[in-house]
Amino acid sequence: VICSQGFAEVLGIEGVSIRTWLGIDVGGSKLALALADAEGRLLARRRRPTEPSRDAAADWARIAADARALVVEAGASLADVEAVGVSVPGPLDLERGLLLEPPNLPGWSRVPVRALLEGALERPVRVENDANAAALAEWRHGAGRGASHLVYLTMSTGVGAGLVLDGRLYRGRAGAAGEVGHARVEWDGEPCACGRRGCLEAYCGGAAWTRRLRAVTPGAGRVAALAGGRERALPEHVVAAAGEGDAFARAELDRYNHYLARGLVNLVFTLAPEVVVLGTIPSHAGEALCLGPVRERVRAELWPLLARGLSIRPAALGAELGYYAGVSVARESAGASGS
Amino acid sequence: VICSQGFAEVLGIEGVSIRTWLGIDVGGSKLALALADAEGRLLARRRRPTEPSRDAAADWARIAADARALVVEAGASLADVEAVGVSVPGPLDLERGLLLEPPNLPGWSRVPVRALLEGALERPVRVENDANAAALAEWRHGAGRGASHLVYLTMSTGVGAGLVLDGRLYRGRAGAAGEVGHARVEWDGEPCACGRRGCLEAYCGGAAWTRRLRAVTPGAGRVAALAGGRERALPEHVVAAAGEGDAFARAELDRYNHYLARGLVNLVFTLAPEVVVLGTIPSHAGEALCLGPVRERVRAELWPLLARGLSIRPAALGAELGYYAGVSVARESAGASGS
Repeated sequence: VICSQGFAEVLGIEGVSIRTWLGIDVGGSKLALALADAEGRLLARRRRPTEPSRDAAADWARIAADARALVVEAGASLADVEAVGVSVPGPLDLERGLLLEPPNLPGWSRVPVRALLEGALERPVRVENDANAAALAEWRHGAGRGASHLVYLTMSTGVGAGLVLDGRLYRGRAGAAGEVGHARVEWDGEPCACGRRGCLEAYCGGAAWTRRLRAVTPGAGRVAALAGGRERALPEHVVAAAGEGDAFARAELDRYNHYLARGLVNLVFTLAPEVVVLGTIPSHAGEALCLGPVRERVRAELWPLLARGLSIRPAALGAELGYYAGVSVARESAGASGS
Repeated sequence: VICSQGFAEVLGIEGVSIRTWLGIDVGGSKLALALADAEGRLLARRRRPTEPSRDAAADWARIAADARALVVEAGASLADVEAVGVSVPGPLDLERGLLLEPPNLPGWSRVPVRALLEGALERPVRVENDANAAALAEWRHGAGRGASHLVYLTMSTGVGAGLVLDGRLYRGRAGAAGEVGHARVEWDGEPCACGRRGCLEAYCGGAAWTRRLRAVTPGAGRVAALAGGRERALPEHVVAAAGEGDAFARAELDRYNHYLARGLVNLVFTLAPEVVVLGTIPSHAGEALCLGPVRERVRAELWPLLARGLSIRPAALGAELGYYAGVSVARESAGASGS
């Protein structure tokens, strides 16, 4: 049952008191809210622009109000909410549920997200970085269902990993694990936003690739035409031009695939995952332009023992990711039902 | 109480029936047997040459007989043994407790170690590869005590890792995790025994380094003199010559440290461990020649969040490692007390 009521989509059955989990996914541009049942099915959801102001307390009060409204519109009550899960861009202070200095959310520096929401909603709140939340979502509801050992690579502006190892999220010391975007795929290579050189993110991060597209001149005509000017060129224009057979775009994707495969090979030798789920750019580029060539390059390097039973897949949740990311974090909390 | 009785050292109190764990550590040259109590304290131990013949069944019957004799000499009985742990060189079929094709133990191909020992000793047997067993031993009894997230690097003939993540051994799919010796530290670099190029093991494995020492000519005089001929040169002679200030040996160690640091940086960005324990070569080379320079190189690359609270340490168990490795595997079995 999908019906539009007030501002949210209500997908569940109203008027029945059931245990629910509330998810809040905060992106650089969009914010997604969702309410799910014990099996992780969405009962209601809503999306709106994030619109961070300089007044983080007011912004988060509004987020809490939207969450409360979503619960009410779904015909539930906050008392039915077992836990609230928040997915936010890192870095985080996990211990204190504190957003540190998210580069894409200026003004939200050192925001005590957990304390603010626990105060406003009076429910237990768990905060997780977006790569970990996305890994949980793809593992519970998407491309990684049933895997014991999963690596999810978020590959949009930056590159980072969420690691599900032995059937649970692995965070590492201070929650800092999964920074595989800063493992090196070249020595003395391209400068990275982190200040080092040759990081995977410096080759396969959307921001780095965008910078490169605006600097690389020869042969970029078709990409520039699709973008409406080279200064507007984005990875998606390269993908579109490559799909048309444009030589420059094909070479760019080849370079992308080359470095992505280098990063994946080191990861697989280290962690021997069953499933690697690749996020935004590779899943948009698809089989012929990215996933197939990357798989081939990775397999050519792996020992048979590691290659056998390894699956490299595109992310499955697409535009729904945010809803499941928040809800998956909530369900990881104490009291969640597990999978 | 340490007394020599029969062929074993008996360290515990005799005649008291207590729960015990039996460990068997199989190395390329030496075999170590130990009996431990619930706290992991050694009650009796014995070491002898491994001496693998072409008759694996007879070899393992002898190992079982030695294990049985050790238990009796310690004043215990097999009925007191909760579990038997076996540490063997990989690769393994973990599911079936099967030794596959250990390169240093010719003749022991596809040996069903678990079935043979369970048949002979009538106790539950758990088999683990040596890197994992050593990681458990250093974590429970050595340099990594109390760490939640530990990476142990075995650095003798080859290079491999045992990963303790969130307080338990992480094995990955088919037990194949931890092959960080084959993560790349150079592109199109030195050939590796695995058939690829530029692997960490091709630079920091003892076998690869030994091959190089026998090939590299200029300036290797002091190393050759200490070894009694270049054809006998080993990493330990480089360490000794470097300790005397020999320029060639210092440059060799500098190269070793450079590549080890490269491998560690990628590992730390991926796993954010609290403790990295470095095995044989670095722990022999010591602070001034290896550990200090490696720490400095690694820290220069890490973000503050990852560098803070990261400790890179030499292995602590030294010649005792084998005893604790086997016993630690036994104690990981069902019914072990944990730490």
